Amino acid sequence: MTDTIATSQPVEAERSPAGEGHRVWHVPDCFLPSRSVGEHPSHEALCVLNVSDEDARLELQLFFADREPVTSVVTVPARRNVHIRTDQPEMVGVTIPRDVPYGCRIQSSVPVTVQYSRLDAQDGYELMTTAAMPIA
Amino acid sequence: MTDTIATSQPVEAERSPAGEGHRVWHVPDCFLPSRSVGEHPSHEALCVLNVSDEDARLELQLFFADREPVTSVVTVPARRNVHIRTDQPEMVGVTIPRDVPYGCRIQSSVPVTVQYSRLDAQDGYELMTTAAMPIA
Amino acid sequence: MTDTIATSQPVEAERSPAGEGHRVWHVPDCFLPSRSVGEHPSHEALCVLNVSDEDARLELQLFFADREPVTSVVTVPARRNVHIRTDQPEMVGVTIPRDVPYGCRIQSSVPVTVQYSRLDAQDGYELMTTAAMPIA
Amino acid sequence: MTDTIATSQPVEAERSPAGEGHRVWHVPDCFLPSRSVGEHPSHEALCVLNVSDEDARLELQLFFADREPVTSVVTVPARRNVHIRTDQPEMVGVTIPRDVPYGCRIQSSVPVTVQYSRLDAQDGYELMTTAAMPIA
Repeated sequence: MTDTIATSQPVEAERSPAGEGHRVWHVPDCFLPSRSVGEHPSHEALCVLNVSDEDARLELQLFFADREPVTSVVTVPARRNVHIRTDQPEMVGVTIPRDVPYGCRIQSSVPVTVQYSRLDAQDGYELMTTAAMPIA
Repeated sequence: MTDTIATSQPVEAERSPAGEGHRVWHVPDCFLPSRSVGEHPSHEALCVLNVSDEDARLELQLFFADREPVTSVVTVPARRNVHIRTDQPEMVGVTIPRDVPYGCRIQSSVPVTVQYSRLDAQDGYELMTTAAMPIA
Repeated sequence: MTDTIATSQPVEAERSPAGEGHRVWHVPDCFLPSRSVGEHPSHEALCVLNVSDEDARLELQLFFADREPVTSVVTVPARRNVHIRTDQPEMVGVTIPRDVPYGCRIQSSVPVTVQYSRLDAQDGYELMTTAAMPIA
Repeated sequence: MTDTIATSQPVEAERSPAGEGHRVWHVPDCFLPSRSVGEHPSHEALCVLNVSDEDARLELQLFFADREPVTSVVTVPARRNVHIRTDQPEMVGVTIPRDVPYGCRIQSSVPVTVQYSRLDAQDGYELMTTAAMPIA
């Protein structure tokens, strides 16, 4: 038992070629503000960790309060971590309406892990984050 | 294995007609501030994702430090995502006392997913969020 | 299937007399700042929801980077929700050192749910929250 | 059933010599800003609670959007809680690139619990936190 924090040189960590995490995730609180008062534009990110040796094909389903769901597809390459910006249609595969509450369901072809974050610069400089909810 | 992020046109995602998530959720840290210094009023949201083909009937039970629980009912329609604002009695079905710590238990007729968020503008512009705790 | 949000009068929700949640919880990121620049003092809260018909006796164990754990006991009454302020020794049962990183293990006599939140007013007005990690 | 919060003197809490939590954790949203406008430098912390009687040897694997993963090793002593600062190479065992989105996989030799937090002072004073995702 030591009382100090030991660090060491990089090592080869255990690999997880078949993937880790879950194939279906939910994020009930999404919102993309149109307004930004500071130097950083308001945006959201669906952050996806794919530790597997296979590309992950993600089907995103966006749910709203008053209209039918919208769907798009995003690929997160093998052994990569991608922060999918919802304000960049070329990244998220769809133009997300601004200032409209929505939620997201993510279904992946291989197990991955999802975290949701938002930078809200409507009236200050504000971040929030949560692990997405694993479903299956 | 690709090293770029591929996006594509919308597709028809897999449907989950029977619902996904859980029927009982807890949120121990709720608080509705009376004060707001910026352009956005302080508020909370119970964000609910209902991917099923059935309306979800939610029973909300609010627990306090020094009084008996209070109950209301909210409906989240099929295939919809609703951000239930706790500062809007017509939305949450009850007038929630301001500046009083409380917690919430949500019981749904079909599986749903719940996330809790708060905008606290008492002394700045501040957001926080967390996935609610799935119970059953 | 409706497209509007229906709310209704209070009802008697299902009771859970034996409790709901978990008996052991972890919070690895605790920190009680000594400094506050705004009108609200920096503080943390361990928010506990006890939906059972029995009082919950909580044993808190505080873990540090460089010293042995410290323990205290807090009671959360039956059918109550309490935000245990870590800056109030009479509430948390121990004087927590300021500006010292620590973590917390909570063990309860009945199942409860725990969420951790911090108001950090060291250099602005800042809130963060997360569900605690259920262990057993 | 009491309606007040009872606190009492410290007691000896139940010990968990074999550890509690999980051996593998994911954090998909990591980011270490280079810029800081206030008195506190921007940083992240991987907060680890090790309640066991054994030191925990952690293998950290950092995943990026466009390069191969990087690995380091950190030790969290028995019965200790450590906030591993990602801006301190001597603590995290590697120099993490600034302003680059990444994600983290943590594998521990004994069960531990992990929480991720970020202080972002790029354009204000901003904190966010989430429980990491337990994988195995």
